[in-house]
Amino acid sequence: MKTLYELADSLGLPFRGNGQCLISSVGTLAHAESSQISFLANPKYTNQLQNTRAGAVILSESVADKFSGNVLIAPDPYVAFAKVARLFVDAKQTNTYIHPQSFIHPEAQVADDVSVGAFTVIDADVIVGQRCQIGHHVTIESGVVLGNDCVIKSGVTIESGCKLGQRCIIHSGAVIGADGFGLARDEDGWLKIPQTGIVRLGNDCEIGANTTIDCGTIDDTILGNDVRLDNQIQIGHNVHIGDHTIMAGCTAVAGSTMIGRNCLIGGGVGIVGHIEICDNVTIQAMSLVTHSIKEAGQFSGAAPLQKVADWRKNAARYRQLDQWVRKVNQLEKKK
Amino acid sequence: MKTLYELADSLGLPFRGNGQCLISSVGTLAHAESSQISFLANPKYTNQLQNTRAGAVILSESVADKFSGNVLIAPDPYVAFAKVARLFVDAKQTNTYIHPQSFIHPEAQVADDVSVGAFTVIDADVIVGQRCQIGHHVTIESGVVLGNDCVIKSGVTIESGCKLGQRCIIHSGAVIGADGFGLARDEDGWLKIPQTGIVRLGNDCEIGANTTIDCGTIDDTILGNDVRLDNQIQIGHNVHIGDHTIMAGCTAVAGSTMIGRNCLIGGGVGIVGHIEICDNVTIQAMSLVTHSIKEAGQFSGAAPLQKVADWRKNAARYRQLDQWVRKVNQLEKKK
Amino acid sequence: MKTLYELADSLGLPFRGNGQCLISSVGTLAHAESSQISFLANPKYTNQLQNTRAGAVILSESVADKFSGNVLIAPDPYVAFAKVARLFVDAKQTNTYIHPQSFIHPEAQVADDVSVGAFTVIDADVIVGQRCQIGHHVTIESGVVLGNDCVIKSGVTIESGCKLGQRCIIHSGAVIGADGFGLARDEDGWLKIPQTGIVRLGNDCEIGANTTIDCGTIDDTILGNDVRLDNQIQIGHNVHIGDHTIMAGCTAVAGSTMIGRNCLIGGGVGIVGHIEICDNVTIQAMSLVTHSIKEAGQFSGAAPLQKVADWRKNAARYRQLDQWVRKVNQLEKKK
Repeated sequence: MKTLYELADSLGLPFRGNGQCLISSVGTLAHAESSQISFLANPKYTNQLQNTRAGAVILSESVADKFSGNVLIAPDPYVAFAKVARLFVDAKQTNTYIHPQSFIHPEAQVADDVSVGAFTVIDADVIVGQRCQIGHHVTIESGVVLGNDCVIKSGVTIESGCKLGQRCIIHSGAVIGADGFGLARDEDGWLKIPQTGIVRLGNDCEIGANTTIDCGTIDDTILGNDVRLDNQIQIGHNVHIGDHTIMAGCTAVAGSTMIGRNCLIGGGVGIVGHIEICDNVTIQAMSLVTHSIKEAGQFSGAAPLQKVADWRKNAARYRQLDQWVRKVNQLEKKK
Repeated sequence: MKTLYELADSLGLPFRGNGQCLISSVGTLAHAESSQISFLANPKYTNQLQNTRAGAVILSESVADKFSGNVLIAPDPYVAFAKVARLFVDAKQTNTYIHPQSFIHPEAQVADDVSVGAFTVIDADVIVGQRCQIGHHVTIESGVVLGNDCVIKSGVTIESGCKLGQRCIIHSGAVIGADGFGLARDEDGWLKIPQTGIVRLGNDCEIGANTTIDCGTIDDTILGNDVRLDNQIQIGHNVHIGDHTIMAGCTAVAGSTMIGRNCLIGGGVGIVGHIEICDNVTIQAMSLVTHSIKEAGQFSGAAPLQKVADWRKNAARYRQLDQWVRKVNQLEKKK
Repeated sequence: MKTLYELADSLGLPFRGNGQCLISSVGTLAHAESSQISFLANPKYTNQLQNTRAGAVILSESVADKFSGNVLIAPDPYVAFAKVARLFVDAKQTNTYIHPQSFIHPEAQVADDVSVGAFTVIDADVIVGQRCQIGHHVTIESGVVLGNDCVIKSGVTIESGCKLGQRCIIHSGAVIGADGFGLARDEDGWLKIPQTGIVRLGNDCEIGANTTIDCGTIDDTILGNDVRLDNQIQIGHNVHIGDHTIMAGCTAVAGSTMIGRNCLIGGGVGIVGHIEICDNVTIQAMSLVTHSIKEAGQFSGAAPLQKVADWRKNAARYRQLDQWVRKVNQLEKKK
């Protein structure tokens, strides 16, 4: 339990109303109770503000002026909400229990204060940093290095030799370091190219559930610091991703593509192989990127949603678009 | 073994031909033997009817009139086939074996008649309902509740606190309750928003292999009754999905979106966050939904497939479509 | 360590330069050292050739003429590189260790020279061929057959009865044989169709990390020989895929579709159910295939990427494309 005054003080932010108001956790505008603090960041939910029962609300200054309840005033209410939520969660303790039904290879180096779940495998020559929390059914193959304070959730596989920085979070079912899709076509069929590189993650990376990051073919697949990948993403071999770039779910990046820093890649995006995307590029959901992008900016490519009857007619015209445009040109010339 | 007469009687449907014909299982028109019953539901396969060796076939009345073999007549042959197939499968017994190489926390409440596979983890305070069948390598984290008659296949992860209704089926590799993708951008980088909600599934939900459903950020992610998700689907935090809605493989729904009842969502569809889709909406494969849909109906959005040579020309024109339309308008005005 | 002369001799290819040059492994043009052999296959990287420190480079004859260093001359440098890389990797030994914390059912038939990882389950009536390498946390359900020399990586699930040929490689987290998405709509809701078929893989198939291949509903799901699937792919029930066909990541094929031999399917492609694609078809990334393809060739369908401001205008025009084309037709008639 913290008072509104204490929360404001922790975050270095001003407040209005009753500073002695007691807050025990965070809640949504729609469902918070009087012991909870809520927030308004997305203007779509402004109409929920007047009826909220939250004990206090985090608001921008301009919105705060129109609200009569207790307010924590923040330039970016979503960031302030993140910080407040973390204050309450950080109070929870982590544990340092090694489950007896795990397998830790005698030649692995595991720090004293880690926790390891049931049926987890930590193989030879693995190094596990301090305070790492490793779930159930995790496979950490030989030679992997985990920095300090990593969280590896249940069912994760990290293949041989991959290196993670500090404070990385790997969600359930993710696979780090599987073979890239490297094939050469011989007369008899496909020849598999041995995949001998690794995956390197910087510090503070977060990898979503069931996401896959392939190892490099010879050199490595590299994610910088603070790269955040949502669930079900596929990162091909030898891809590089710059610091602070984030990707939403189900996006795929093909081999050897270089993505810059501070990019925002939407969900379901496809990025072909062997191209470069510069810093500060935003790609909207379900776009296909087929060429390098050399200038920062926002890009989009999905076709628009239509009623099926309209879609059928328009799609049929699209198939002949070049012909129609030629006709327009001819009509113009005849003028 | 059942006679055609018995099958017809079980389903309350009429038959034609030899009621004493013995049926031991279901088969396809192309490959069924004389001891099997087959069906015709998709008109694409009508030409297979004349040559089938099936002992009997489930047909609609109009098709049955043109077929000389033994027939079970059904208003919807696919539904009748489902019911017949289930009659033969339900005859198989389920088991109640707890594998000795599993870990069941002493504070878990597991009903007497469940089965638990090898290396499965059932953590503290989990409640497992009657007759649940749990496979190998399953992780059920603390506080999870499984209703009666759930089937959890191998390698599934259900994270802390999630609640499943009765008769849910979770296929291999699915992850229920991983953290949502909640990040706020601070000056130094991304701040992770703690994800403290859970996932709630109603009764009779089926979740496909390697599908992921994120927990809610504060409130919960909620699937109603009889929601059916295919493989490789991603459901974001705080999504709601109404009763009887189904989704085909590789579809993704971003956070806080509300989807109604009886919707049919195709494969590879993307649905952005914070929108609402009403009841009885059909979305065709690989469409992107960027706005709320307030009226029932069928929607589509994928661009048409073309030969690459045509696609190049048409796609180039599409990039200047607005300019061409303006020219058409000018030509029209000059008339 | 092998000399350039020995490598050339092994592959039956000519070389230029110092045949006594010692090579210990493969490297990229950018990062190879003098004890490594590199290659140039993608012309995008030609500019890296002049500065490489590689001890030798695999080049086509025409490129070799412009390079002064040691060269292995190959008609297809990528194929030659694959073969050279395999020479160095094949030198590594595989092991035949059965981890004591695994579960092998007494009624399974496991060849003597296989390796089985920790917490792996090999259930009743499974047959494991010679020299198979099975990782940690693998589930092989009852009745599965693995041919000789299969490699099953960690966390793979192979469900009951599936049959794999020889030399198949299944990457981490893949699920072979989960239930297909078969549902019939009854008045009360969805009726699950029992899925009683299996998955059959031919020889030399490779299945990517977290890829899912559903079992057949009645008949089987069948992949031919040398079919190569990248990560995160979804193959529906009763799909057939012909020999040597490959698919890049995140592609989905719906139920009962037949795909021919030697097809190249890009990433993020969607292929609807119940259609046929003939041999030698190439589908580019993120295309949707809605109809059968009866002629070999290259097809594409994704909408082009644009700056968001352009995309908004062009997409709006696309929604009325049929109307604009009608106007063009009217203008033409009035001429």
